[in-house]
Amino acid sequence: MKILVLHGPNLNLLGTRETSIYGTTTLDTINERLQVLADTLGVEVQTMQSNHEGVLIDALHTTEAEVVVMNAGALTHYSYALRDAIAAIKKPVVEVHLSNIHARREAWRHHSVIAEVCDGSIAGFGALSYELGLRAALDLAGTGGL
Amino acid sequence: MKILVLHGPNLNLLGTRETSIYGTTTLDTINERLQVLADTLGVEVQTMQSNHEGVLIDALHTTEAEVVVMNAGALTHYSYALRDAIAAIKKPVVEVHLSNIHARREAWRHHSVIAEVCDGSIAGFGALSYELGLRAALDLAGTGGL
Amino acid sequence: MKILVLHGPNLNLLGTRETSIYGTTTLDTINERLQVLADTLGVEVQTMQSNHEGVLIDALHTTEAEVVVMNAGALTHYSYALRDAIAAIKKPVVEVHLSNIHARREAWRHHSVIAEVCDGSIAGFGALSYELGLRAALDLAGTGGL
Amino acid sequence: MKILVLHGPNLNLLGTRETSIYGTTTLDTINERLQVLADTLGVEVQTMQSNHEGVLIDALHTTEAEVVVMNAGALTHYSYALRDAIAAIKKPVVEVHLSNIHARREAWRHHSVIAEVCDGSIAGFGALSYELGLRAALDLAGTGGL
Amino acid sequence: MKILVLHGPNLNLLGTRETSIYGTTTLDTINERLQVLADTLGVEVQTMQSNHEGVLIDALHTTEAEVVVMNAGALTHYSYALRDAIAAIKKPVVEVHLSNIHARREAWRHHSVIAEVCDGSIAGFGALSYELGLRAALDLAGTGGL
Amino acid sequence: MKILVLHGPNLNLLGTRETSIYGTTTLDTINERLQVLADTLGVEVQTMQSNHEGVLIDALHTTEAEVVVMNAGALTHYSYALRDAIAAIKKPVVEVHLSNIHARREAWRHHSVIAEVCDGSIAGFGALSYELGLRAALDLAGTGGL
Amino acid sequence: MKILVLHGPNLNLLGTRETSIYGTTTLDTINERLQVLADTLGVEVQTMQSNHEGVLIDALHTTEAEVVVMNAGALTHYSYALRDAIAAIKKPVVEVHLSNIHARREAWRHHSVIAEVCDGSIAGFGALSYELGLRAALDLAGTGGL
Amino acid sequence: MKILVLHGPNLNLLGTRETSIYGTTTLDTINERLQVLADTLGVEVQTMQSNHEGVLIDALHTTEAEVVVMNAGALTHYSYALRDAIAAIKKPVVEVHLSNIHARREAWRHHSVIAEVCDGSIAGFGALSYELGLRAALDLAGTGGL
Amino acid sequence: MKILVLHGPNLNLLGTRETSIYGTTTLDTINERLQVLADTLGVEVQTMQSNHEGVLIDALHTTEAEVVVMNAGALTHYSYALRDAIAAIKKPVVEVHLSNIHARREAWRHHSVIAEVCDGSIAGFGALSYELGLRAALDLAGTGGL
Amino acid sequence: MKILVLHGPNLNLLGTRETSIYGTTTLDTINERLQVLADTLGVEVQTMQSNHEGVLIDALHTTEAEVVVMNAGALTHYSYALRDAIAAIKKPVVEVHLSNIHARREAWRHHSVIAEVCDGSIAGFGALSYELGLRAALDLAGTGGL
Amino acid sequence: MKILVLHGPNLNLLGTRETSIYGTTTLDTINERLQVLADTLGVEVQTMQSNHEGVLIDALHTTEAEVVVMNAGALTHYSYALRDAIAAIKKPVVEVHLSNIHARREAWRHHSVIAEVCDGSIAGFGALSYELGLRAALDLAGTGGL
Amino acid sequence: MKILVLHGPNLNLLGTRETSIYGTTTLDTINERLQVLADTLGVEVQTMQSNHEGVLIDALHTTEAEVVVMNAGALTHYSYALRDAIAAIKKPVVEVHLSNIHARREAWRHHSVIAEVCDGSIAGFGALSYELGLRAALDLAGTGGL
Repeated sequence: MKILVLHGPNLNLLGTRETSIYGTTTLDTINERLQVLADTLGVEVQTMQSNHEGVLIDALHTTEAEVVVMNAGALTHYSYALRDAIAAIKKPVVEVHLSNIHARREAWRHHSVIAEVCDGSIAGFGALSYELGLRAALDLAGTGGL
Repeated sequence: MKILVLHGPNLNLLGTRETSIYGTTTLDTINERLQVLADTLGVEVQTMQSNHEGVLIDALHTTEAEVVVMNAGALTHYSYALRDAIAAIKKPVVEVHLSNIHARREAWRHHSVIAEVCDGSIAGFGALSYELGLRAALDLAGTGGL
Repeated sequence: MKILVLHGPNLNLLGTRETSIYGTTTLDTINERLQVLADTLGVEVQTMQSNHEGVLIDALHTTEAEVVVMNAGALTHYSYALRDAIAAIKKPVVEVHLSNIHARREAWRHHSVIAEVCDGSIAGFGALSYELGLRAALDLAGTGGL
Repeated sequence: MKILVLHGPNLNLLGTRETSIYGTTTLDTINERLQVLADTLGVEVQTMQSNHEGVLIDALHTTEAEVVVMNAGALTHYSYALRDAIAAIKKPVVEVHLSNIHARREAWRHHSVIAEVCDGSIAGFGALSYELGLRAALDLAGTGGL
Repeated sequence: MKILVLHGPNLNLLGTRETSIYGTTTLDTINERLQVLADTLGVEVQTMQSNHEGVLIDALHTTEAEVVVMNAGALTHYSYALRDAIAAIKKPVVEVHLSNIHARREAWRHHSVIAEVCDGSIAGFGALSYELGLRAALDLAGTGGL
Repeated sequence: MKILVLHGPNLNLLGTRETSIYGTTTLDTINERLQVLADTLGVEVQTMQSNHEGVLIDALHTTEAEVVVMNAGALTHYSYALRDAIAAIKKPVVEVHLSNIHARREAWRHHSVIAEVCDGSIAGFGALSYELGLRAALDLAGTGGL
Repeated sequence: MKILVLHGPNLNLLGTRETSIYGTTTLDTINERLQVLADTLGVEVQTMQSNHEGVLIDALHTTEAEVVVMNAGALTHYSYALRDAIAAIKKPVVEVHLSNIHARREAWRHHSVIAEVCDGSIAGFGALSYELGLRAALDLAGTGGL
Repeated sequence: MKILVLHGPNLNLLGTRETSIYGTTTLDTINERLQVLADTLGVEVQTMQSNHEGVLIDALHTTEAEVVVMNAGALTHYSYALRDAIAAIKKPVVEVHLSNIHARREAWRHHSVIAEVCDGSIAGFGALSYELGLRAALDLAGTGGL
Repeated sequence: MKILVLHGPNLNLLGTRETSIYGTTTLDTINERLQVLADTLGVEVQTMQSNHEGVLIDALHTTEAEVVVMNAGALTHYSYALRDAIAAIKKPVVEVHLSNIHARREAWRHHSVIAEVCDGSIAGFGALSYELGLRAALDLAGTGGL
Repeated sequence: MKILVLHGPNLNLLGTRETSIYGTTTLDTINERLQVLADTLGVEVQTMQSNHEGVLIDALHTTEAEVVVMNAGALTHYSYALRDAIAAIKKPVVEVHLSNIHARREAWRHHSVIAEVCDGSIAGFGALSYELGLRAALDLAGTGGL
Repeated sequence: MKILVLHGPNLNLLGTRETSIYGTTTLDTINERLQVLADTLGVEVQTMQSNHEGVLIDALHTTEAEVVVMNAGALTHYSYALRDAIAAIKKPVVEVHLSNIHARREAWRHHSVIAEVCDGSIAGFGALSYELGLRAALDLAGTGGL
Repeated sequence: MKILVLHGPNLNLLGTRETSIYGTTTLDTINERLQVLADTLGVEVQTMQSNHEGVLIDALHTTEAEVVVMNAGALTHYSYALRDAIAAIKKPVVEVHLSNIHARREAWRHHSVIAEVCDGSIAGFGALSYELGLRAALDLAGTGGL
């Protein structure tokens, strides 16, 4: 069982970027925590980050993973192309966010254009959002994990 | 460590209510699964359901739990009184939903008036939403669980 | 064949409340007229009034009636919890109003959040709205009345 | 006592038109059912259908009926000319619809521009909507029928 | 020099229709006053009323008049077909209204979809609106009248 | 009989200002034409222009004229203080505009905040708008002029 | 002369709840200050708090007080049922708020759905809002107090 | 195989009407070009123009054609009655426009109320729009043309 | 201790202006009542009225008063310059209105652009609004009055 | 004569992606059909697909084709950069879509941000949309094809 | 070469007014810095400040300067009269702001009603905004400065 | 001291692209003028253009420059990813535009989604916008230049 974890634009700067909102945990640390949890749960995790919408779409199209956990970053709020990519592939996708986007100051962060085609969403728990997303992904894949 | 799990209006009908959306798992089953997980994680879980906004507010005011996991049902979308109750108490609150409210057909389900004062939200994973919510609650309470 | 007639907030004041809009007929008189009509049509009518959203939801959940005639009062315009209660039970519901809510001065009265899950609506005929609602309820229950 | 029943655009196709929404009853059958009920109630019913807004306005201007029951079809949602015609004549008008327009998928069906000048509205009960409308019309005309 | 005065839907009922808004002057009286003024000013006036949008469009297409004075009634607020007809003919058109549509209670009366293609508008002076419109029409036709 | 003609901001520049929209007639010429017409009609006309909202309000408060013809310029579209001044005095006010504000390119020009408290409006006929306004003012003052 | 002071949802937590907004004065202190002022003014004050919309409506229906001072809390912003209750009883109602709701960060706090049926509103002065409300209530009751 | 080509309001003026937008080709020329293409493709074309909404609806109801190509003119943007007529008949309908309505200056031209019930739309190619529409109609009718 | 009471546009006409809304009390009477109350409370009151936005801004800039009570009249609803003047000076400002602006018929009266920078607001009590405002001003100035 | 056919994001998945909406024809088949038609019409067709907005813009900038047929996929609805690229090059562009975007369930699909700078649009005919687009492109290039 | 620098409402308080937003530089200092730069660039600068909209309009009408640099303060956001004054004079106008109005917390600050008739805008650089504006003004006046 | 000047989509076509709006100056010329000015001011300028959102984000992440001058082209209006990239790096960013985006015909050009995280903006002065931006950048970097 393979799970792809996709990180969108600016997430490579985690740990230094707007730390009052996103915390000081780096993306490497998150990826390492996910590998640890994946080992515990007996699944394979692949992680990838890109600031390019097209690269993320290509990754969705070509991944061999059965399930996807995705933090689309700011693309969450306008990339209908990413939304259509998720709809086009026939795999469960879990939407995750570090911050609680529904509670952010900017109104445009309250709406996710990819939500409609994702199976579920988890937001506001920092690195833990990804770990809970991994558990949800397993469940969606029918492996009965948790 | 005590965790209060609050179920809002109509959740008592789970299992028979609009099963194509909410599934066939009953509220009792969800509560039982939460007890099992709580035992595993070494915490105490209290569950409560009400169709009365006022009763839910009273419960938030008077609970001895350190953290709250809450599925406010349809009150999610208009009960500013519930929102102010969450803001008034000084405890972490995790918002959970069985269905992915951001993907539902009705536009009014896409907006949660309580989101702004919750620490995070989990939606779309059925009963698992609650279990992930319990794990998140532990983390927010600083017990480092997962 | 049982029919539940539910009266929402402030309808207990009928006859004295804003009589230029709602007329001088009291709720008791309406209930009596419904009993007379029910006798004529050979059905059983139960009536109930509450100013509490939660009590109305509970009543919908637990009623033994096969059909419901409901004047939700001002809850009509914001109580998504009531809407979900109607959707949750598997019984026809007829929405009735004393005044023609679509013709009222206040814009918010023109939109009913429960309409989407009701079988039909009758508004603007005073006490007669209920009586027509009773006839419609019979028809929806398949008893072929009128 | 005369009652005019006006059918607006596309209602001549009833019985074949979008039957999942409008049912299989034809307009002739509805008119016949109305005649039967009118005989029972001791009133005279005239029925008329047109796809032309102007013809419907002319009919409202020139009718000798004391009350009007009207299903304006799609004109309900934009014909301010029809609205002004109803306001111009000094007779009660009952708005009726086969489907529950407030529950239809299209948002524009939720708003009736003629509602403001009609005495009441009945929607969602198929042919029965007309029959209830006839009863309401009698009541508005002060004949005390039902 | 010929001037066409077009009266739209429901204006045939003037004098009896909503007299608190439109006054008690009949359409015949208005037409007669226009003939008197036309004689004084030395121009020819043709008047026409219809409740049919199509008839009004046809009249605009085929008139031999050099200028048009038009009270489109409620069509003012939604008939883009009438608007395009005015744009299509190459003649000045003066928009007139009996009441001050911008001051009316209904918000939809504040917007005229034909205004954009009319040379000017006069509203709120009852029958005088037409007479002022006639004077304006002469001026637009370059006859220097007033 | 006295009539006050008020010219609002920037109208002092008429004749040189945006001549493609407002024409080449100067404000002096307009005022002279109004004097000529006033003499013909046997009334007294006073004219005044100001770029100061407060000065215009003061003028409305203190004028001895029985009727007012007013081109409020751009204040038309936001000066609620001017609107309240018109409502406060007990005299007919005719709103006039050189251009057809309802046909202008900018959307904000389509709405007049003073319209609601004016008796009527005339727009789009250049200097003639004022002359027609003068005739309307006489009529409103009950002198039966035209 | 009796005056009812109604406190809505979450006001029981005053003094500990979001003190940067609502201050540290408790509800008991406010009630005591009102009693002192009432004694000075020679009137009788009854106070009541509830987190239940229905209980507040019932209280409005059954109170023997001649005037009501009401802080509806968050219900201010969506409870049309409460609004209709105020409209239904024939007594002056003064709307009060601790904070200046029109200056609050959240846009939904700027609109009060009960304002339309209240005689006046006082907001932003903390406990003093209630005291000023009491004085206003006396005045509305025609006792000429202050 | 028969195809009905319907032309809506003002299209009879093509060739003289707003030629900078609609070009100088007359409706007769368009109809002739369609006949030539129909002959080439081996189908029968009937053309009809009307400025009357009701006449267009009647034509849709009674046509013997298997497919319809329709330029509804300005009715495109508000005639829900026409929309319902298209939905009511069980035949493919191709929406065509001479100009690219989505690129026009007026915002209201960007939205077609009939689009939802048409199979496809072609806009912006002048007379060619109709010819492409004819080819599309054949394809929709399953004749495999092009 | 000095308090400035500012009256905005059209308030000089109080007593004759729209008396059904604003009552028959004149501005002089209000000012006198304020002087009486000021004497009782031991403070100094200065009053000023202007129809000029700029004069009101200048007054705010230059006043020696420690607190301001302000009825900005219609400027309340659009004068961002006045709003910035209030924000610019470092003194408490109490917003007062004779009528309950939140209950007025016109929607634009429901929003105050100066509210955001005022300490509190009092509306709907006629001349008493000012007197309550004076008491609130004292409290804001920390003199502990009432 | 060269024609560039550009396919935007996710169109590479055609044939497997959401087949109930987009059909089972693959992108290769569409390209082949276009080559066949191009041969028949005597023109040269180049096809290209990319999931990268930047790559599509670069292609528009550098193409040697005289006309472009473009299905921008979901970028149609938000890529103002693509819109500006079309405006920047001085070549006709035909907008094509497989589905009738104006009839799709999602409201955001009804608006094309590139429409304003395209010569025309064709939507709803599957692969045929491209073939009709090719014919339109020839016509726009002035080659008189069809 | 003369340049007029206009300062709008409340700018006279610079240096003490909301210093966290506008800084501690006074208006005198800004004017002095502009004089220094003007000397360097060999142009003449006149500066003026007013809290009165009418005074600013008068200044624009009568200035002998060839170019204007203008910080309209809060009038930027609603004074259509100021906008029309700028459009009326035939001189370049540069809009400047101390703060970055597009980044301010209040939404109404993001829209400038005068922008449409200004040649360019500079915002967010404090006193430097004016100096850059002076350089831009020179360039617009065709003196080739910088 | 290093300054990065970033040019977004379609700016490579400057000089040939929509010259009535953007002028005939090429991007090379702008870059050369910036180098000249940089030499004069004693700073180092790096310039870069890309049509790829991802490339621009990468450049912001990795630049060694202390300040950035950015013309994001059409991405200005929707690229929240670019906005977050600017927020993520801890360097001043000056937003520049060739045309006055706030005065452009298209409404969507009036709103910049990156404005909120830029220090200031300069728009409407063609190539000079960049030069002024360079001066502003120096000032923001604290070098006291101009």
